[in-house]
Amino acid sequence: MRSLRADSSTAGAPGELGLLRRIRERAGAAGGGLRLGIGDDCALLRPRRGEELAVTTDLSIDGRHFRVGWHPAESVGHRTLARGLSDLAAMGARPVAAFLSLGLPRELVQSARARSAWSDGFLDGFLALAEAHRTPLAGGDLAESPVAVADIVLVGAVARGTALLRSGARPGDLLYVTGSLGGAAAGLARLQELANGPGGTAGKPLRIPKKLECVLAPHLYPQPRVAQGLWLARPGLATAALDLSDGLSTDLGHLCEESGVAAEVDAAALPLHAGATLAQALHGGEDYELLFTAGPAARIPRAIAGVPVMRIGRIVRARKGRAQVALITAQGVKELKPQGWEHFL
Amino acid sequence: MRSLRADSSTAGAPGELGLLRRIRERAGAAGGGLRLGIGDDCALLRPRRGEELAVTTDLSIDGRHFRVGWHPAESVGHRTLARGLSDLAAMGARPVAAFLSLGLPRELVQSARARSAWSDGFLDGFLALAEAHRTPLAGGDLAESPVAVADIVLVGAVARGTALLRSGARPGDLLYVTGSLGGAAAGLARLQELANGPGGTAGKPLRIPKKLECVLAPHLYPQPRVAQGLWLARPGLATAALDLSDGLSTDLGHLCEESGVAAEVDAAALPLHAGATLAQALHGGEDYELLFTAGPAARIPRAIAGVPVMRIGRIVRARKGRAQVALITAQGVKELKPQGWEHFL
Repeated sequence: MRSLRADSSTAGAPGELGLLRRIRERAGAAGGGLRLGIGDDCALLRPRRGEELAVTTDLSIDGRHFRVGWHPAESVGHRTLARGLSDLAAMGARPVAAFLSLGLPRELVQSARARSAWSDGFLDGFLALAEAHRTPLAGGDLAESPVAVADIVLVGAVARGTALLRSGARPGDLLYVTGSLGGAAAGLARLQELANGPGGTAGKPLRIPKKLECVLAPHLYPQPRVAQGLWLARPGLATAALDLSDGLSTDLGHLCEESGVAAEVDAAALPLHAGATLAQALHGGEDYELLFTAGPAARIPRAIAGVPVMRIGRIVRARKGRAQVALITAQGVKELKPQGWEHFL
Repeated sequence: MRSLRADSSTAGAPGELGLLRRIRERAGAAGGGLRLGIGDDCALLRPRRGEELAVTTDLSIDGRHFRVGWHPAESVGHRTLARGLSDLAAMGARPVAAFLSLGLPRELVQSARARSAWSDGFLDGFLALAEAHRTPLAGGDLAESPVAVADIVLVGAVARGTALLRSGARPGDLLYVTGSLGGAAAGLARLQELANGPGGTAGKPLRIPKKLECVLAPHLYPQPRVAQGLWLARPGLATAALDLSDGLSTDLGHLCEESGVAAEVDAAALPLHAGATLAQALHGGEDYELLFTAGPAARIPRAIAGVPVMRIGRIVRARKGRAQVALITAQGVKELKPQGWEHFL
């Protein structure tokens, strides 16, 4: 079937056909590693010599990863793409192309008289971030769905053998994080208050007051650390990396598991986002910062492309009876158990 | 985030974690073009020198592309993958890796006492077809969802510049189709009768009588024509191709549009599937046969890897006032308008 095409069963409605046309018009031309974009059975990618391709997919579902009634459509589009770009960033890969499968209830596609449809806002948010990261939308699928779902596929390129894996951390390595932590969880908590407060009229989209935009931004518009990942994949820098999607306590556990090591985190060194609690920084997910390790001799800068880098701990040998991840505070050492973010349970 | 990982918000339930573990165990090892499979932020693919990569995504939603209450779980898994493989076949690409994003209601993941969960049947159907086409499952995403959704991503490889496009047909080319047409629509019609008949108890999965399996097979278990597509992409054979997902009348229109040509179809030459009507062959979608064109001098065999190939018409110049697609019958010539399959509207 045609890539990106509307399902024939939905293409009858002018709203869907219009959305498809708008996507094709706005998706951007082929170029870079993309030889053939939207319109044929598949897109065609042409890797450069000596390059490997990194591929990731992330599923977002209304009520689970976002709420149509809470999140501005632009935020849902942005967050959908950010999840995929962040996975590329964590591998140190350069984005080549994105593919979007979108299932939407009819009322989100059809335009109300005065203002444009929800799907147009989604596209605005999606394509603005795509443009910022020079990532053409190369294909996908559209279908009518009883619940809004968006599956994002990102393809990136990385020089052969240089991808940042989760399995590369070694005892003696130091532990770093980009940006700040807990901002997304703090923003989501504020959004939940707003939705459950007097301003949150059921059935109507939530109006976000101007003065809250800054507080909510880390949740609504997280910034994938693509430039930072590319920088860190250079020889002699990071030894392992992943992106903080489930929260530090959960994701650091993954890194330790894949590398066969343990880790110590200095609580005092954690770069808490303004207004975020320690618990939000430790367990709140969706910050999409990079967590990475590097040898003690590696020259890790204080900031990469304007984003601060903080040393927050170290990698140690895994030992029976020792916590996989330990948190060191002024009060002593305690085990940091995974308490990953629960999204919208 | 981890590729293929369960959403942290669902991973708490033993059913989901078990499903994730079973997928990882059964996904098959890296190899061929796949250097790194499930377990890191992205999978890594290593194309051979001189190869391009073909990428396609297809979204399947309960009630739209399948029905949990009608289709055996194995069929839904098979059909999900078949849609993606068929897109690769239409480009003449060799499958390299598949990625699966799966959103499932909890009750489809949790196992009833006596028999295994729906999700296990889905995996059986998916992985059996994947194995038959040597396609490792390299990543994806899992999440809880109010409605069952499956998004499939296929990555294939094709020698640079040899992919079969929709745009390559020229006046004078002959028009061919693999296999037979209308079988999927005839099978679906029979399935609908069964579901709406006395055997279709609402709420319980439909029991398919043994004697109907053959009639339903083209609908429940369509065969993507991967080997045929690879063969046709050789130099001097097909000039354009696509797969019949929306039905001949709709898909041939797409081919004409992209190539800037018109087409004539000989009704008498159409290879009707046993039990299928002419209307089902012309408009019934989901046969997943290949529709292709070739120059008059091309040596197109009568069968490729056991699948018959039929000449069904020709490509002519597009002219104002002439039908884009004409159907030639004993009664004369008439315009064949797109009447693509409506799935489960």
